[in-house]
Amino acid sequence: MINKKEINAGIIIIGNEVLSGRTADTNTSSIAIWLNSIGISVKEVRIIPDIEDTIISTVNELRKKLTYVFTTGGIGPTHDDITAESISKTFGIEYGFHKEAFSILESYYKPGEFSDGRQKMAKMPVSAKLILNPSSGAPGFNVENVYCLPGVPSIMKSMLGGITNSLVGGEPILSSTINLRTVESEIAKSLTEIQNKNKDVEIGSYPFFKAGKLGVSIVLRSIDQLKIDKCKSEIKNFINQKQIEIVESD
Amino acid sequence: MINKKEINAGIIIIGNEVLSGRTADTNTSSIAIWLNSIGISVKEVRIIPDIEDTIISTVNELRKKLTYVFTTGGIGPTHDDITAESISKTFGIEYGFHKEAFSILESYYKPGEFSDGRQKMAKMPVSAKLILNPSSGAPGFNVENVYCLPGVPSIMKSMLGGITNSLVGGEPILSSTINLRTVESEIAKSLTEIQNKNKDVEIGSYPFFKAGKLGVSIVLRSIDQLKIDKCKSEIKNFINQKQIEIVESD
Repeated sequence: MINKKEINAGIIIIGNEVLSGRTADTNTSSIAIWLNSIGISVKEVRIIPDIEDTIISTVNELRKKLTYVFTTGGIGPTHDDITAESISKTFGIEYGFHKEAFSILESYYKPGEFSDGRQKMAKMPVSAKLILNPSSGAPGFNVENVYCLPGVPSIMKSMLGGITNSLVGGEPILSSTINLRTVESEIAKSLTEIQNKNKDVEIGSYPFFKAGKLGVSIVLRSIDQLKIDKCKSEIKNFINQKQIEIVESD
Repeated sequence: MINKKEINAGIIIIGNEVLSGRTADTNTSSIAIWLNSIGISVKEVRIIPDIEDTIISTVNELRKKLTYVFTTGGIGPTHDDITAESISKTFGIEYGFHKEAFSILESYYKPGEFSDGRQKMAKMPVSAKLILNPSSGAPGFNVENVYCLPGVPSIMKSMLGGITNSLVGGEPILSSTINLRTVESEIAKSLTEIQNKNKDVEIGSYPFFKAGKLGVSIVLRSIDQLKIDKCKSEIKNFINQKQIEIVESD
């Protein structure tokens, strides 16, 4: 709806720590914001456990129906890091030491400190393209349309910039937000009318509590700034009529 | 692996605001922690857009393979809130005013303030069981093994307690965490050996940065406290041998 020739993506968060509730996932948000900025919209996210069969079947399902797939998690040195081996099996590529990854890691560590545990991080599908890691040495990797990144949010984020040029993006998805001091039921009818008249703009309405006060964020998303602006002025019209306070608007 | 007679669940986060990266999902974590406490493990999470066909197919897929399914989001009064109607179609139940929900909302609002917009929140599968909302009136609902909750985290969380008694749980999943001042590669080999000897304990290893320092959290999960304790003492043995500092342990 947003983009006629749509370029889209799926995200697979691999890790029992997210499914157990111990860790709240922030990687989805980081990846989605970055992808939107280069015109790629995220269609689906899966959070799955560290189980080989599940990783393989989920990657296979998403890589066939979406332009790109990003995985996070499971590429470290411990026993529960099984993403690299699972991706090798997904594509039928040998799992072993990746020459370039091995030499990157070898020179990253001090002499004598490139232990067996650390060497495991150089094991992956041997013909994968590397995704360089400016934070902590160990690279991610890319096979066909699947990009495998680490789970630690700060490291994962630092690696996204290095992938941008290898992706074919669409038109950037623009957005604009208006925060109102109101409740959703007050504006529901008017918003529906505006959505019906403006099919190329996706209008979202999200209640919030901030500093103990209720409000609603209206988010307009489209690849066309003029259409967002038109929609926004229609919204501002009914807001004026209803004498609703604008808390913030970009 | 954790639980022989496993009772499990899936979570479906419905909302473009999460897929766009605007909002980081915290509902998964809240629901998973609560479910673990009553012996239900979360097997899979899907984050999907506000699209009727996608909601119906995802709910159908998960409700057939998992014991329980929880959805969050899309039950408010605006045009992008389509979960209730989609769930009606999923089960072939009439979508309309739910008598009990209508009367709850009618008495929640001051006379004259129960507007059309607010009345929409009483529309759902007419024969659904209600999930009461102690925070803001509008109830969630339950059909068969599917439980539909709102997306606003504080409201969603306040409704979980009311569902607990309607679920058949398993043995609570216990966990214990040891935070170490080390890196994963240092402990990978020993951890693998301990995992291989303790199949009934799921051992997770998660690197962290806290106050500018690197560390690793080891998380032990099992339904059997004795098995966790045994595993923990084996881990403490190798930690002592390697002279690794324990930052924190529960």
